[in-house]
Amino acid sequence: MLKELDLLKSLLAEVSDLNRTSAVLGWDQQTYMPPGGSEDRGHQLSLLAKLAHEKFVSKKIGDLLDSLQEYGKQLDPDSNDACLIRQTRHDYLKATRVPTEWVAEFSQLTSVAQDVWVKSRPKSDFNAFRPHLEKIVEMRRQYSDFFKPFDHVYDPQLDDFEPGLKTADVQAIFNELRPQQVDLLKQINAKPQVDDSFLKVKYDEQKQWDFGVEVITAFGYDWQRGRQDRSAHPFTTSFGSGDTRITTRFDQLGIASALFGTMHECGHALYDQGISHELNRTPLHDGASMAVHESQSRMWENLVGRSQPFWDHFYGRLQKAFPAELGNVPLDKFYKGINKVEPSLIRTEADEATYNLHIMLRLELEIMMLEGSLAVKDLPEAWNKRMEEYIGITPPGDKDGCMQDIHWSFGGFGYFPTYALGNLVSLQLWECIQRDIPELDKQIAGGRFSELLAWLRENVHQHGHKFEPQALIQKITGSKIDPNPYIRYLKRKFGEIYGL
Amino acid sequence: MLKELDLLKSLLAEVSDLNRTSAVLGWDQQTYMPPGGSEDRGHQLSLLAKLAHEKFVSKKIGDLLDSLQEYGKQLDPDSNDACLIRQTRHDYLKATRVPTEWVAEFSQLTSVAQDVWVKSRPKSDFNAFRPHLEKIVEMRRQYSDFFKPFDHVYDPQLDDFEPGLKTADVQAIFNELRPQQVDLLKQINAKPQVDDSFLKVKYDEQKQWDFGVEVITAFGYDWQRGRQDRSAHPFTTSFGSGDTRITTRFDQLGIASALFGTMHECGHALYDQGISHELNRTPLHDGASMAVHESQSRMWENLVGRSQPFWDHFYGRLQKAFPAELGNVPLDKFYKGINKVEPSLIRTEADEATYNLHIMLRLELEIMMLEGSLAVKDLPEAWNKRMEEYIGITPPGDKDGCMQDIHWSFGGFGYFPTYALGNLVSLQLWECIQRDIPELDKQIAGGRFSELLAWLRENVHQHGHKFEPQALIQKITGSKIDPNPYIRYLKRKFGEIYGL
Repeated sequence: MLKELDLLKSLLAEVSDLNRTSAVLGWDQQTYMPPGGSEDRGHQLSLLAKLAHEKFVSKKIGDLLDSLQEYGKQLDPDSNDACLIRQTRHDYLKATRVPTEWVAEFSQLTSVAQDVWVKSRPKSDFNAFRPHLEKIVEMRRQYSDFFKPFDHVYDPQLDDFEPGLKTADVQAIFNELRPQQVDLLKQINAKPQVDDSFLKVKYDEQKQWDFGVEVITAFGYDWQRGRQDRSAHPFTTSFGSGDTRITTRFDQLGIASALFGTMHECGHALYDQGISHELNRTPLHDGASMAVHESQSRMWENLVGRSQPFWDHFYGRLQKAFPAELGNVPLDKFYKGINKVEPSLIRTEADEATYNLHIMLRLELEIMMLEGSLAVKDLPEAWNKRMEEYIGITPPGDKDGCMQDIHWSFGGFGYFPTYALGNLVSLQLWECIQRDIPELDKQIAGGRFSELLAWLRENVHQHGHKFEPQALIQKITGSKIDPNPYIRYLKRKFGEIYGL
Repeated sequence: MLKELDLLKSLLAEVSDLNRTSAVLGWDQQTYMPPGGSEDRGHQLSLLAKLAHEKFVSKKIGDLLDSLQEYGKQLDPDSNDACLIRQTRHDYLKATRVPTEWVAEFSQLTSVAQDVWVKSRPKSDFNAFRPHLEKIVEMRRQYSDFFKPFDHVYDPQLDDFEPGLKTADVQAIFNELRPQQVDLLKQINAKPQVDDSFLKVKYDEQKQWDFGVEVITAFGYDWQRGRQDRSAHPFTTSFGSGDTRITTRFDQLGIASALFGTMHECGHALYDQGISHELNRTPLHDGASMAVHESQSRMWENLVGRSQPFWDHFYGRLQKAFPAELGNVPLDKFYKGINKVEPSLIRTEADEATYNLHIMLRLELEIMMLEGSLAVKDLPEAWNKRMEEYIGITPPGDKDGCMQDIHWSFGGFGYFPTYALGNLVSLQLWECIQRDIPELDKQIAGGRFSELLAWLRENVHQHGHKFEPQALIQKITGSKIDPNPYIRYLKRKFGEIYGL
């Protein structure tokens, strides 16, 4: 069987090489490509996607997986080879259920839909976007049908991002979370607001860059195996075990976007940099799921980067970099400012106490659209109603309402919940870390992150995509995804800040 | 036949997409890739090369070329389609003559040889490199044998870079050129040397960058379809009709490397940016040959950038950027300094009057090695003898002698002569341009390059790879490659500078 396994690995290595090649082209497209490069880049990316898909769904790989199935079951189920055979089989069976013609048609549809979204969003012109979204919903339903029988039409969508997770699981989690977050938000809104006006002034870009670099270097980002550049939308991308890059951006006014965005992307990058080199060029050289990936970015951004101990250490340095802007702002005021809770329209700018509410309304709406219980034409109204109910404000137009995110225009149904699940997982892990590293706060207050990183490497990062997310989380924390640690965290943190 | 032609084009477009993808990865490797990325990048590049080769030598393309051959002959021979069929057939027949196993073995050999060269060169350790070069020479001979019968064993090597050109042609050209260049150099050496000490001081990098950008913007480089970055070795690369990039580098001391290097790469880039968009994603979206490409880079670098009229316009600006370094250097002194002729060891740093001599000795040696009349073990001695004879100096070690260039270590036999041929072609074109644009000097002295660029676009650039180099040059200038315009130019220019 070793010969078959080696052959399988060499074929999968080529698929990985092609996917990583696409990632390089995508990185370049978003960082340095001149405007004239778009047209040809489109051809290159679509060819690479086609080749990677063809190579992956080949009969050869299917036959190898068949002949290796029994062998895989005899191995230690946690071994790299057993996981490789099992996880690849799962992905292969999914990929081969979807007809190539559907993939081509859907890619064509969403390519046009994204263009239309880009153009119609600034004008809040939902009617222009509507027919495209209707077709996308219809095709997403067809997609689910390829995986019949299912418990819920949304299950196959979710499984693309959170392998093994069911719609009912997510709904149960969110049903527990939502009322408590809504209630917390109401309590906060009844209290006097904190001042964050000092965050809304102009900060020198180079100094922001330098401070961000200092912070993520302290976190443990390996610059020999990565780099940072600028892009319109920050992202993390990996071209191999030795090359995981991040990007950042700067606001015209303010410091939060670059500062916390850099920590967030670094969190993703530390995950990728920590995956065992033994898994390189296999499908296992990836995160466990989107939610687990997001748990890492949110942990470094929020649990570390927006914490009191972190600023005990770093605030003096930040003040030194920005004496005019922050010299007269005491630490306590700064800490409250960066943690200000405020009902807002835009998900990506939402604070920790409201963020999940933005996600939950999206999940409900996309499930209803897929089920057919919400017509696309009624989406704006349903959106606005929930915004009022959960967050307490109503968008002045669809631009900042149901048209604000790109995800639906590229057909990314099933994607949104992973953001909120990532928040929840980050706290489940954090409670374990606090137990295992009693000195954690003290270490952070001393600017020392190596024990924290070592814990994450050991328990999360090194395993890559070997396990399904629920299995991995259970393995580490003893339970599946659970909203309670996050609720405890929110109540404690914002209770202190707002004196609840 | 139109259906076959369309199918051929769509298959060739994919080959082009893959080659351009490799180019993006190569660009990234030389500009931004962190050290950790090397290993995986190697896998990605070798897979892309394999896929592009497989796609190109496919039976499908062979059959289409066969069935289109007669059709192509009925078309206007200068039409895009006729050229596409003809040129692709030439490349296809070459590519399919070489066994895949040979390609793989040679690639393996040169990959190791380059490593050895990198390590042994600093120590002038020719003995360490020798066995690898011996094997490379042997395999290059095998390569020629795939194309038997040939007039000369070197012909198939040369044809890879200069399609259609014969060894006998190049030898005839060089035999006419060499004694006159050697004689000119002797005359110059007998005269008092010019002073260029002001070029060997520290120049601010950002100001060098800005000045270079100003110059190539004036040349007509299209920043919407390109960009400039830094790399250890400057190069130009193209990822499509709308994305042609250049790189530059800065010396610790001095300004010449960045200044003339930037103009040189811009010359290459203007060529690529000027190829007809109709040829995009075909094998014709390329230069006619290496020599014709080099004619463009050398023209902008030397015939424009090292000319009196150019500095009549730009010197004031350069002095303004570097008042401390150049404020007291009069224009005449600066002009002579940047054109200083000096026997030197290193080809890439050679001036216009000695450059070709470096090339000619390489050509003679690589021909002799291939013929078997020079054993690799005797290369250092043969090199040093010719250096003394042509240029008048002897390298202190092989590092700056026969081991100075990377080319032989990657097996690039046939490459060197294109550098000298490019110089010759640049002057043949220049004499036509001077005839067609009588105001050329005046325009350059006014910082106006649009008529010059338009001429090059019309006569050279737009045609891309449609014609063989000799055919293209004959078409434009009325004669094949001819050393006399270059000899006239050298004698006039350096006669004035050195008062011969």
